[in-house]
Amino acid sequence: MAVTDDKARNLARAREMIRTAGEEGSDIVVLPEMFNCPYDSQYFAPFAEEWPHGPSLNMLRETAIEGRILLVGGSIPERHQGSIFNTSFVFGPSGELLARHRKVHLFDVDIPGGITFKESDTLSPGNDVTLAPLTGSSGKLGVAVCYDIRFPELFRRMALGGAMLVAVPAAFNLTTGPAHWDLLFRTRAVDNQVFVVGVSPARLPGASYVAFGHSILVDPWGEVLAMAAASEDLVVSEIDLARVEQVRRELPLLKHRRAELY
Amino acid sequence: MAVTDDKARNLARAREMIRTAGEEGSDIVVLPEMFNCPYDSQYFAPFAEEWPHGPSLNMLRETAIEGRILLVGGSIPERHQGSIFNTSFVFGPSGELLARHRKVHLFDVDIPGGITFKESDTLSPGNDVTLAPLTGSSGKLGVAVCYDIRFPELFRRMALGGAMLVAVPAAFNLTTGPAHWDLLFRTRAVDNQVFVVGVSPARLPGASYVAFGHSILVDPWGEVLAMAAASEDLVVSEIDLARVEQVRRELPLLKHRRAELY
Repeated sequence: MAVTDDKARNLARAREMIRTAGEEGSDIVVLPEMFNCPYDSQYFAPFAEEWPHGPSLNMLRETAIEGRILLVGGSIPERHQGSIFNTSFVFGPSGELLARHRKVHLFDVDIPGGITFKESDTLSPGNDVTLAPLTGSSGKLGVAVCYDIRFPELFRRMALGGAMLVAVPAAFNLTTGPAHWDLLFRTRAVDNQVFVVGVSPARLPGASYVAFGHSILVDPWGEVLAMAAASEDLVVSEIDLARVEQVRRELPLLKHRRAELY
Repeated sequence: MAVTDDKARNLARAREMIRTAGEEGSDIVVLPEMFNCPYDSQYFAPFAEEWPHGPSLNMLRETAIEGRILLVGGSIPERHQGSIFNTSFVFGPSGELLARHRKVHLFDVDIPGGITFKESDTLSPGNDVTLAPLTGSSGKLGVAVCYDIRFPELFRRMALGGAMLVAVPAAFNLTTGPAHWDLLFRTRAVDNQVFVVGVSPARLPGASYVAFGHSILVDPWGEVLAMAAASEDLVVSEIDLARVEQVRRELPLLKHRRAELY
């Protein structure tokens, strides 16, 4: 979805797209990183909400119940005890909070001629590996946010903890996106033999931070099952969790780890 | 190089190609996995050699001295105390042994309609993360063999230990090669911000195990600097280790690790 500096408009648009996804038969819906707020440090504090109530949190809870879906609410700026986190709230079909992932790795980069951003100026990091129950399955849903995907250790922890699908709201940019977007989502899937879905805000050429777009769904063998456009787009796709077991049986990477050496 | 079941022919061919690489100005030369022996379990025992002498070990030592090069001797079956390892011997320009990497992760896979192989029927695994001095640099040379590349933990250990370049003699096949070859070499480079070079035997359509070929050199940003043909090929390329420091300064992944969480 296209994220603007009008929060009410963002929430209305998200609600509309979630409903459409539900009408098309989705059991799980994933929104992009900072879906309620421009990805720009000056907006994080004024757009932040505190659990358990706020316009974005209420909308997520209501639409999860309404659609009877598992809703990975992208991420929003979360205010908590004087700090602001980049947080993904995950709601179940009864509106219950299944998980809350606070982005663990903050995006502080400075690439001359490319992208410069310093999340740690305004945000605090989370301290947890996040797994939620995955309805109708023995597996779990892992949750990470954007820059977290650059750390293979985090994904390994999720896989060893039972993740079969990892949802990653993520706003890459026009420097890191063309260079690494597909690559990182595909490799985390291949290394851990899980499904990985990355969901980006739409690309808006005028924005202070131009997101890459191209939300992506990858299977445990690294095949790209679906990819969105750079502009606003809704992708509905199907995954078969049995594929996780099949790939792990054929190429038993997790069994072949030499944990005593690492 | 094309590897046959004629060991003397393999050694002569390797010597010739190393010489050519040296004449073209190479400081470092990397040979493919099992360069002296077909990648086929029945050949590992009869082709094995025991440190410090044997036709392959002697050839490697002599050509390293002759060319004044750092020579990553692909890998050979190594006999040691009744076991056989898939071992990469690394020689310095004075013929000194700089490192010996015994493949840590054995390739035991069974993909119906794809590839089936069971290294553990004949081979024993190594137990060490391998780093060698990298001449003229403060960094180190990491060494891994083939299936080792599927384990991000091993590459992280090498990077944290100072690796700036990781050499990976590797024989992927026609199932795993098209699916994962570029992907894995590129991601290990991007995640660890190191150069990674993968060197494969040439593709020989008649062989019992058909190697993928396409030896590859990737820079710390994930760009493919050079790629060989599927058939026999010699690639000479240049790397600038300062690129490692530059990428790590711009996108400080190793500093941003949250080691206490993994």
